[in-house]
Amino acid sequence: MDEVRLIEVKEGILADNKKTAEALKQSLKSKKVFMVNLMASPGSGKTSLILKTIEALRKDLTIGVIEADLDSKVDSEKIAAQGIKAVQLKTGGFCHVDATMVAKGLDAMNPDGFDLIFIENVGNLVCPAEVDTGAALDAVILSVPEGDDKPLKYPVIFAAVDVLVVNKMDFMELCDFNLEAMKERVRALNPGIAIFEVSSRTGQGVEEWSNWLKNKVREYQA
Amino acid sequence: MDEVRLIEVKEGILADNKKTAEALKQSLKSKKVFMVNLMASPGSGKTSLILKTIEALRKDLTIGVIEADLDSKVDSEKIAAQGIKAVQLKTGGFCHVDATMVAKGLDAMNPDGFDLIFIENVGNLVCPAEVDTGAALDAVILSVPEGDDKPLKYPVIFAAVDVLVVNKMDFMELCDFNLEAMKERVRALNPGIAIFEVSSRTGQGVEEWSNWLKNKVREYQA
Repeated sequence: MDEVRLIEVKEGILADNKKTAEALKQSLKSKKVFMVNLMASPGSGKTSLILKTIEALRKDLTIGVIEADLDSKVDSEKIAAQGIKAVQLKTGGFCHVDATMVAKGLDAMNPDGFDLIFIENVGNLVCPAEVDTGAALDAVILSVPEGDDKPLKYPVIFAAVDVLVVNKMDFMELCDFNLEAMKERVRALNPGIAIFEVSSRTGQGVEEWSNWLKNKVREYQA
Repeated sequence: MDEVRLIEVKEGILADNKKTAEALKQSLKSKKVFMVNLMASPGSGKTSLILKTIEALRKDLTIGVIEADLDSKVDSEKIAAQGIKAVQLKTGGFCHVDATMVAKGLDAMNPDGFDLIFIENVGNLVCPAEVDTGAALDAVILSVPEGDDKPLKYPVIFAAVDVLVVNKMDFMELCDFNLEAMKERVRALNPGIAIFEVSSRTGQGVEEWSNWLKNKVREYQA
């Protein structure tokens, strides 16, 4: 493997992406559209959390969703079924979403008039961590069945995000999951991180998380 | 982004890797060492399944483990605590394991005399799917809390593997998981795939999976 060539190309791509992401951020700021990049493992509950958050906030905010998947429309169809505008990006095997893909999704959506747009990133705790999507807020979900050691094993993403949502709290009894130890591991990587404990299934913690998010949107729009 | 350049570099790297992987396969075959590449999402239970399989097979087979993580020794320490030879690869942020990394791990382990070596790949359903590690068998774990739609959303990996282990079967009652629908989705992508249903926690199905794997090792060594 020609590692030097790989690293050069990777750095070039990340630098080009950064420029695209900055332009997106400025454009969205001028339109007062708050974009959230939601990342997590496959199956941690990204789509369900988005649906619960929409349910909590749709009376106050106009919300849209950009769904990204390797090759399916499963998630965008779930969102659209709730009467929410959803655009599906097919990454064609690509392991993360970059700012150019998001720009295409926003073009398809027409973001004017939206208060809040979620990007549901590809299910992957590794690759999306380094790539700026142009979002104003980066969030990661960790679901309880995944285990409390994940911040040790995937430190880059836990260090990079603004907020951690611990999902599937209703599985706590079945799992050997030390919540305090997990939080300590995350805060050692990222002292300023906000942490919420929720269950999309039972509704636990959804109101607190949603209210926090609504305040972030309002601060950004002020 | 210069997509053409990216694709050229990616294809060059995959072609170089394929050569390294083929050389590894020949070398391991001559030594009668059966190597399994185990892939899955973060938290689906790769390490626990390896530990349960070792427990079932250690009286019959000499087993070693190559653990890969972005930047931690959590998993190799769990394996070594059971008196099993374990080597830790730190991928330094890299999202998958390639044949060159595995060759380094094998050098550190000295594979002579082993019957079975597991590679525990980085927790990621996307990137590892396309990269040949030199293993004789490719396996993926899908855990029940992740959801039955994962073959629709991550088709490349389900099409590429020889065997699927459905883990955390003891979570079935808590989850809205349609086992038959999931299997149909997988078999539509990969008609020849072997499928096992296990719970590393309760031990359900571990014997059947372990015996199947032992037979694969013995056929390979014959």
